[in-house]
Formats: sequence, C-alpha cells, structure tokens
Amino acid sequence: MEKEACRILFLPENREVLAPPGTLILDAATRAGVIIDTPCGGQGRCGRCLVRIQEGEATRRENPHLTQKQQQEGWVLACTARVAGDLVLTVPLLKERERVAVESAASRRAAPVPCPLPFYPALRQVFLELPHPTLEDPATDLDRLRRALAQKEGLDRLRVELPNLQRLARTLREGKWQVTLDLYLPDGEARLVDLFPGKKKGPLLGLAVDIGTTNVVMEVVDLRSGRSLGGASARNRQVLRGEDIISRIVYSEKGEGLKELQGLVTDTINSLLLELARAHSFEPGEVEVMVVAGNTTMTHLFLGLYPKPIREEPYIPTTSFFPEVRAGEVGVNINPQAPVYALPAVAAYVGGDITAGVLASCLYRADRLTLFLDVGTNGEIVLGNKEFMTTCACSAGPAFEGAGMRWGMRAIPGAIEEVRIHSTTLQPTLRVIGDRPPQGICGSGLITTLSEMFLTGVMDRAGKVAGDFVVSRTRERPRARWGEHGTEYVLAWAEETDAGEDIVISEVDINSLLRTKAAIYAGIAVLARTLGIEFNQIEQVLIGGAFGQHINVESAIQIGLLPDLPWEKFHFLGNTSLAGAIQVLISKYARAQAEEIARRMTYLELIADNTFMNEMTAALFLPHTDINLFPSVKAQLEKKG
Amino acid sequence: MEKEACRILFLPENREVLAPPGTLILDAATRAGVIIDTPCGGQGRCGRCLVRIQEGEATRRENPHLTQKQQQEGWVLACTARVAGDLVLTVPLLKERERVAVESAASRRAAPVPCPLPFYPALRQVFLELPHPTLEDPATDLDRLRRALAQKEGLDRLRVELPNLQRLARTLREGKWQVTLDLYLPDGEARLVDLFPGKKKGPLLGLAVDIGTTNVVMEVVDLRSGRSLGGASARNRQVLRGEDIISRIVYSEKGEGLKELQGLVTDTINSLLLELARAHSFEPGEVEVMVVAGNTTMTHLFLGLYPKPIREEPYIPTTSFFPEVRAGEVGVNINPQAPVYALPAVAAYVGGDITAGVLASCLYRADRLTLFLDVGTNGEIVLGNKEFMTTCACSAGPAFEGAGMRWGMRAIPGAIEEVRIHSTTLQPTLRVIGDRPPQGICGSGLITTLSEMFLTGVMDRAGKVAGDFVVSRTRERPRARWGEHGTEYVLAWAEETDAGEDIVISEVDINSLLRTKAAIYAGIAVLARTLGIEFNQIEQVLIGGAFGQHINVESAIQIGLLPDLPWEKFHFLGNTSLAGAIQVLISKYARAQAEEIARRMTYLELIADNTFMNEMTAALFLPHTDINLFPSVKAQLEKKG
Repeated sequence: MEKEACRILFLPENREVLAPPGTLILDAATRAGVIIDTPCGGQGRCGRCLVRIQEGEATRRENPHLTQKQQQEGWVLACTARVAGDLVLTVPLLKERERVAVESAASRRAAPVPCPLPFYPALRQVFLELPHPTLEDPATDLDRLRRALAQKEGLDRLRVELPNLQRLARTLREGKWQVTLDLYLPDGEARLVDLFPGKKKGPLLGLAVDIGTTNVVMEVVDLRSGRSLGGASARNRQVLRGEDIISRIVYSEKGEGLKELQGLVTDTINSLLLELARAHSFEPGEVEVMVVAGNTTMTHLFLGLYPKPIREEPYIPTTSFFPEVRAGEVGVNINPQAPVYALPAVAAYVGGDITAGVLASCLYRADRLTLFLDVGTNGEIVLGNKEFMTTCACSAGPAFEGAGMRWGMRAIPGAIEEVRIHSTTLQPTLRVIGDRPPQGICGSGLITTLSEMFLTGVMDRAGKVAGDFVVSRTRERPRARWGEHGTEYVLAWAEETDAGEDIVISEVDINSLLRTKAAIYAGIAVLARTLGIEFNQIEQVLIGGAFGQHINVESAIQIGLLPDLPWEKFHFLGNTSLAGAIQVLISKYARAQAEEIARRMTYLELIADNTFMNEMTAALFLPHTDINLFPSVKAQLEKKG
Repeated sequence: MEKEACRILFLPENREVLAPPGTLILDAATRAGVIIDTPCGGQGRCGRCLVRIQEGEATRRENPHLTQKQQQEGWVLACTARVAGDLVLTVPLLKERERVAVESAASRRAAPVPCPLPFYPALRQVFLELPHPTLEDPATDLDRLRRALAQKEGLDRLRVELPNLQRLARTLREGKWQVTLDLYLPDGEARLVDLFPGKKKGPLLGLAVDIGTTNVVMEVVDLRSGRSLGGASARNRQVLRGEDIISRIVYSEKGEGLKELQGLVTDTINSLLLELARAHSFEPGEVEVMVVAGNTTMTHLFLGLYPKPIREEPYIPTTSFFPEVRAGEVGVNINPQAPVYALPAVAAYVGGDITAGVLASCLYRADRLTLFLDVGTNGEIVLGNKEFMTTCACSAGPAFEGAGMRWGMRAIPGAIEEVRIHSTTLQPTLRVIGDRPPQGICGSGLITTLSEMFLTGVMDRAGKVAGDFVVSRTRERPRARWGEHGTEYVLAWAEETDAGEDIVISEVDINSLLRTKAAIYAGIAVLARTLGIEFNQIEQVLIGGAFGQHINVESAIQIGLLPDLPWEKFHFLGNTSLAGAIQVLISKYARAQAEEIARRMTYLELIADNTFMNEMTAALFLPHTDINLFPSVKAQLEKKG
C-alpha cells in the first residue's frame, strides 16, 4: 500500500520534509533547504550528488557511477533515486562524496582478464665461488668462471663482451675468487651484464619505458621481487620538433634531424631516470636491463633508424623486430652494457606499444571476442581473441593527449579531469587533479567537456558553439564568446586558475577533438566490417593508453568516440604499453609471447581501404551522422528533448 | 793416373797458373794474382768465394751454401774445392756472386710441408636485387633483405647490428632495391659488415696482423683472389714502455698504463695501415675484417685485458679464446663494424702467434716428428706431429730482435745481416741489407757475429772478448777495445756507417745473446726429455718468426742456439704468426683448425720444471758446457785447433 506522503529526514542537518512517493530525493532536499551539489544540473551524468540511505527505501536506476558494494551500502544519486517510503538519509561532506566517486571510478578500471605469466626475469644474479688457480689447475679466468657456472647453474654458454672481460681478472682477484654475476638469459645463451667482487647485495634493477609520441612513461622494477620501485613520466622532448608522428619524420629528414630527435628522446629518458634514481635512492648505472615499448616511429627514432619510408606509401619500416642493443649504444645512462630490448612492431603504424598492449591485456589468449583500443597520439585497434587478431591504425592525432589544444595538458596535478555543465545555468563545475586551481585540461577532461557541451546544448551536433543561446542564459560574464580561435566556452576564469588567463575550449580545439574521435570510430567500424563482425558480437572492449585510464565511458560514447555498447563491456587497462614492457622485464616468457603476438597479428592498412574516409566523415558529427548507431545517446536526447 | 801439375785458367782475367792436384782453388787463384774475397778467411763458412767451373774437375765438399742446381751448374767455393785436373774457371763479379749466394740462402727457407686449406674467406660479398615493396607486399626492409638472401644464397640467418641497420633503408632506396652486402660468415650465422647501394666493384679487403712484442707486421689481402696487396712492418710503439713482456705488464699496472699500451699498439697498427693504404691506393675504412696473431700478453694488451696475472704465478690469462670484437671497439681505423678475430692462445706464454705458427707450419698434420720454434721476443717451442703436440715457452728476451742491444735493429735496409771475420786478420766483412752503409745489426747479423767471434777466437767459449789477443793481430786501429759496456769489438768504423759512430758489439750485448740462446736451447732440451724424445728422433725442425727468416743454421748451431742436427732437417718458414693469420683470413677452415690446435696442444710449464734452470746454465757457454752435444762444432774446432 502506497503512502500519500513519506517522511524524509536529512542528516546531519536534521531537517525533515514530507514528500509523495516518486519524488526525486534531490527535489525533496531542495524543499528541506538541504543543498546537494549537482555539477551536471541533476542529469545523472556526473555522479556527484551522492547521498546514503540509512533507513527506508528508494527506487533507483541501475547506475554505472556506483559499484555494487556501494549500492549495497545504501549509496544513491540524489538526482536519480526517488522516494518510495519513509527515509533517513545522510548527505555526506564533499570530501566523503569525492572519496566514494573516486572509488567507484577506480573499480571501473580493473583489468578484466588476469593472465599472469610466470615470474622469471631474463636478468638473474648468480653468486659463485671459484677454486683458486694453481700451476696444476691453470685454467684461464674465463674458463674457470664458465666451469663454475656450468657446475652450479647448469649454464654451459656464457658470452662475455669486451668491457666486462676487461674487468674479469681484477674482479675475481678482488673478491678472492668469489664473484657475483648479473646474467641476461633471454634464451639459451647467458650474457654477462655486470660482475662484482664477492657477494653483492642490493636490488637488481630493470627499467620499463613506454615511449609515446607525446609522453614518455617509465617504471623501475626490482627484479628480485618483481615489485615496482616507482614510476615517472614527462613530455617526450621531441614534441619541440613536431607534435605528431608525421611532423617528427619530416623533421628527421633535415640535416642532423634524426640524430637530434634520438638525442631528445634519450634526454627525456635520462632526465626521468635521474628523477627516479633520486626518489628511490639508486644509481642510474645500477639499472641493468631495459625494455622499451613504443610505436614504430618512436622506436625507429629511439634507435636512430631512418624513418622516412614509414610516412611514404607503401609505409615500410626498416624492421619490425628490433635488434637488442646495449644501453651505451643508444645513449641511455643506465649500465652501458645493459641490454635494451624493444618490443616488436606489426607494421608501420602498429608498433611495439600495441604488441605490449595485446600482451598486457591478454587479448591473445582471450576466449571472448575482444576489441582492444589504444588511444594515444595515434589510435590503434585490435579485434580478435586467442584464435585470430587483426589490427589497424587510424592517424587520430594527439588531441586527447592535450597536444595541439590551447589548454591541453597531461593528467597531472592542476589538470581539469572532469567537467560538468549545469543543464539550466550552463555554469561548469570542474574536477581538478590534486584538488587545486586548474592550469589546463587533460584528455578525460576534454571528453567530458565535449559531451557536456553537447548534451547541454552549449554546442550543436556539428561542434559549433551556440554562442547567442549560451550568452542569454549565463548571468554575469558570458561563458560563450568570440575568441582568438573562433567561438569559445570559458571553463574557468583567470582569477580561479593557476594559468593567469581564462581557460577556454575553442571551436578549433573542438574540431581537432572531433577529427580524432571520428578517426578512431571509423577505424573500429572498418575493422569490424572487414572481419564481418557486428558491434554487438564484441564481448569486451579493453582500453589502453594512459589516456584511457581516466576517461568516462558514458561521455566517450556520448561523443561517439566509442561504439554504443553496454558499459559493463568496457574495461580500462591504463597504460598497457608500459604494462607490457614491465611484463617482458619480469618474465622471459612474456618476451617470447610478445614476439609470437607480433608475428600472429594481421595488419589491415586503412589507407588502402577506401571506405575509411567515408566512415570518418560520417563520424565527424556528435555522436555520429547516423544517430541510430548510438541508441543510448538517442534515448538520452529524446528524453531530454 | 794423377797429373803432377794441372793447368788452371782463371776467366775473365785470363790468367793461368800450374798447380799440383789437391791444391785449394783459392790458393791457386792467389798464386795467379786473382783476388777472390773471403770474408771468413777461407774457412768455408761464409759461402762468398764462389767460382764457376767451365771445364775440368775439382773435388768438392758437400756444401750447404750451394743448392743442388747450383752445384750442377759448376759453382764451387774456392776455399773448399781442390784441383783434380786441368780447369777453366770463371771468377764472377761480386754482384753475380751475391746473387748466387742469396739464391742459395733463399732455397734453404722454403716451407717444407705444403698444406693449403681451401680458399674460403669468412668475408664474402653478395649482390642482391630485391622486389620493390608495395601495399600488397609491405614486408619491412630487413625482412625483404633476409628473404632475398635466403632465396639467392640459402642463408637463413642474418645478423644486422644497429649501425648498419640505421643505414639500411637509405641504402636500399638509393640503389633502387639493388644492394651489395659484405657478409661475415665464420660459422652458421651471417653478420652484415657493410652494405652499398647497387652493385659494388673494387677489392674486398682483409688485414692480417702479427702483433709482436717488438715488431708489428701486417699484410693486406684481397679476399676476392686471396692475393696479398702488400705488407708493412714497424716497431711496436709499446717498446717505449718496456722492451719485454714483463716490463710491459708492470707498466700496465700503473694508473692508465693499460690504456696507454693499448693505444700505443693500435697507433702502430693505424700508422702501418695508413702507409699500406697510400702505397696500394685503398681507404683504411675499406678493410672489413682483421685477424690478429700475437702472444698472450700482446693480445691482452691489444684488447685492453688486464695482464697482471700473466706475470704472477700461476700465470693465468683472462682468457685464451678471445671474443671477436668490432674494430671500432678497439680503436683500429678500418671499417668500425669489421670483425676483429684474435687467434686463440694455449697458455700465458704460448699465444695465438704459436697457434698461428702451428697452423702455418702444418705441424698439426705432419706425419714426421717435428720441432717448431718461434724465436721472437720470447722463444716458444712445439714438439709433435698430427698425433700429439706439446709446447713450452722460455722467456728468451728480445735480444735476437735487436732490442736491448746497443746497435740492434730490425731486418730493414741498413741492417748488418751477416758478419764474417777473417781468420787471420780478424777484420770483419759485413753484408748490409739494401747494400748501403750500415746503421745497426739485425738478428741474423747478431748470430753470425757471435759465431764468427767464437770460431775465430775473438771471443772465448764463455763469451769473453779476448781483447789483447785481438789487438795484437789487428793492424791500424784496434777492433777490440774497452768501451762503455765492457770489452767490445768494432764491426764498422763511424766513417763507414750511417750511424755516425762506431758500430760495436759489447760484452753486455754478448751476455744478452747468450742468455737468450741458452733459454731456447734449454727449452728444447727439457721439452724433448719430458716427452722421452732424443734429438736425433726429430725428423724436421721448422723455424718461424721474422727473425728465423734470415738466420744461418750453421751459425745458429755453432753458438748452440739450435741443436746439432743435420742441416737438411732445418727449414725456415719466415713469419709464421703472420702466415697463420693470413690463412685464417682467407679460409674459414683455418679458423676452425686454429681453435682445434689451441685446444689440442698440451702446455708444459717450464717454471714448474726444476731442470730448466740447470739446463739453461749449462747452455750459457758456446756452444754448450757439454761440447759433445754439438759434434759438428766439436769437429770444426778440432780441425781448426
């Protein structure tokens, strides 16, 4: 039996109000004089109007913003839950609401397929005690060492290159015939990387590096435990010489351009290394193995390979399986004898970062039909499972990494990572990493900005900012205005920022973002069609790339970046390029697997596919020219309309 | 019926004389007023008093100074042949006599065992035409190259290191997909050493280097034909930092000593390389493979390996099988990617030069029991045949290379290479390389100086110059006198030389030479005794080392350097260290053979053998304390006495 009026008590303010069943909790709160922030204007988009039911019941919508556990604990969104009886509710402090929202977001980022490979680093440490040489046993130092290694470890092939051989005699005698060897054994033969007199203690360090076109991210791993000591990231200094791959390649063709670009990326790595070394108290020279994952061009530039043919039809890299070099050969300031392994590429535009991604995501052994996406400076796509893998690349551009955007920045403290625009007032609410005044916008911030501008009508489906309309509804200063780069929307006024200027998003920025999202969607569409696969057959969508770590699926679907599939199919894996490199660092099986993956993947050349440009043009709208491809967005618009 | 007096006609002077049968031709000539030079005073030692019988007969002694062909042509030594009937004789001009003497000496140096290994250099050149890449055939440059190499040459393993990989894309395109590869294939895997666009012409060059403690000798070989372009040699610049191995090692232990020594030997090699390049019109960078043979210490210093334990009991090298390095790693100015292979050593004092010597001498497949001697700065000895090989080293010192001698020098123009002392006048006659005023004495000159001084009584069996005795018999200025370094004998007066001073041999020099010859003889004696072998069982004596190229067996036996075996058992092979290195350059089978030799050879440590010092002390006399060990010398002394 339904009650006519329910008693709703809001804690801790202890205000009570009567409301009929079906009343939105948000409305009841307003009537009780309790203020609950609704950055999105109560549209259920932002997930910030959290309240917790202490007693009683409310009807609630299935909500992606809350984990199952949070729902069991009584958390609801005030803008979507409705009164169904007497209620006692707590309106938590902002800090507590943020904690719950972040927890919820984090839960949506978990890796979906656990596929650990055995912990078995290719770099190993061995301690040996050798018998002293005598006139009766005058074996050379190297023979003596090999003999002991064969006896103790069963290793009968040891390669010692000149620099370590030059140190062998002194080291053995200094350690009184006790010696610690750091051996690299990716396959049958052991290579001596370093040696120390006596028994060495301390960590055994490896470095995993993701060389992105825009960002370089790395992590130092203790190979005794497999645990990370810490990570660091920075803009790839090559950005100074061009923001995308093509402009880098063009730069490399001028005079000493290639050498300069190689120097810029090693400078970036060396600076980060120094930063990590200071933070975690090790010497850069103690790092004895390095695994690199990067796109094909980045790997070419890192190794000093001539990249020009990559940008010219028929797009041919020098090689897709890179020779293992020594750190000293490429100017990385770890142990100069340390092996540097670059993950193999598949083609000119599907690089070792994607091989690493397929490795880290475990797509290569998934039963389910999986779509893997890596949205970095380029967008690469893999569709497949343990039976087959097909991949393609769409030159998406670095827009979602913030490059080329007036206020773009990396996802570091000071970056706006989420934007909500109030449906009525059109005023934005910002979420800034590190909870401080904003300095710019990172990728996830750009996506929500776009979706919020679109859903609130600040911008039309073609990406045009509806200037007059916004001005008329925003009080005080107008948020929409004519700026240097066409119409722009102000996200933060100069005095609210650490930037010293208004932080805006302009139509030029919006066009870049549209082109990027259209290229990615078109790539997915062409790849699926080529394989005869319908979107709804896709059982899981794994999203890699540092960028993917923080994006909001709902917003990404709303702008037509991702296909309109049920949210539970999406999983954010974070930086899979780095994760794959770390796997190779800590498991030699992972390396063999990565090479197998690179060999197995079939590459689809989109440029050779004349449907790609048509698909992309159709996807330049929000969410798409054909709104029927995005039924959930269509429904939302209709409901709102 | 014997004639009472025979008629002897000397041409071209047309002088006739009568002489009874049995008269020495030399005496008959003197009576006829025909002057025949007898540098040794008519003792049959120097082989210079050549005359040619046109008609008639003479009794002659079996003579090692003449080849069989020369004897058939009628050549005799005037000091040993006796009248046996009427004779018509030609006394040739000095020039003609020298030609015959040199021809005779050369015939005694021929290699005794021809054992050519198949011509099959590890460095090969391959020309390939690759199909152009297309969107349908987008294989990477490296894969395309590998594919073509497998198809055309059946080579399925190609290693391309970073520096060449960096050039691959440009080279292929510059040559319009025609490419010339210089490949190094010592075993199953091919390594790319260099590559060129299109079809490359010109030579394919390899460098063989003998790094001696005192001298560096090298030869550039065209690996298309196996022919040498030319050779060059120079003092090892390390001589500045110590003349023998031990003093070099001691120097290497001080500060940057090792680095400096490594630099000095590469400087020596680089200078010679430049000299060869200029003389034979090639660029040093065109040389694409290098094979080095040197004693263990020289190889250690060349590679920068720490040599200290080589000089300390139990005498342990870092390694006896050296890693193949790239020229760029060791600072040799050939193609920096060129492989540098060092022949393997057997022990601390039996190095790659001896492995090369056993290879070049074919001892390793000889049926006959063979004694191989390499007399360089050290003396190394191998005794064996195809069934077994045992080796030892005696630290002989560089005396026979001229090092440490007041007037020692290498066997180059200006060096006294032969000395004859007149039995009566005690005046020396010199043979100088290049027929010019002398500048010093080389090894073969030192040996004949010693034997002549001993046989003529200028010096006694203990090596003491009999000053008074000599003074009394030398007119004008005394040849024997008290000098800065004890008693000395003057070989040439300042005004006859290019040295600006009297060229002498002092008792200090003589003592050095005695120690050296004693060490070598003692080594041979201990080695033979250890193996239970009597000297007369030795079927051939092969003498290597640049030094061995010019020495006179007779003199070497007379001073007790070589055992007293029939002369025909001795064969001079010249620089077998260099010859072995050349073999490895032109035949990959030779390399495998060299490694087999190094593994097979048994090393006898003389320092661990307490009989060695006794043997050496006994051998410090001329020819030996026990004259019965040298029956031919004993007979000569008795005859003279």
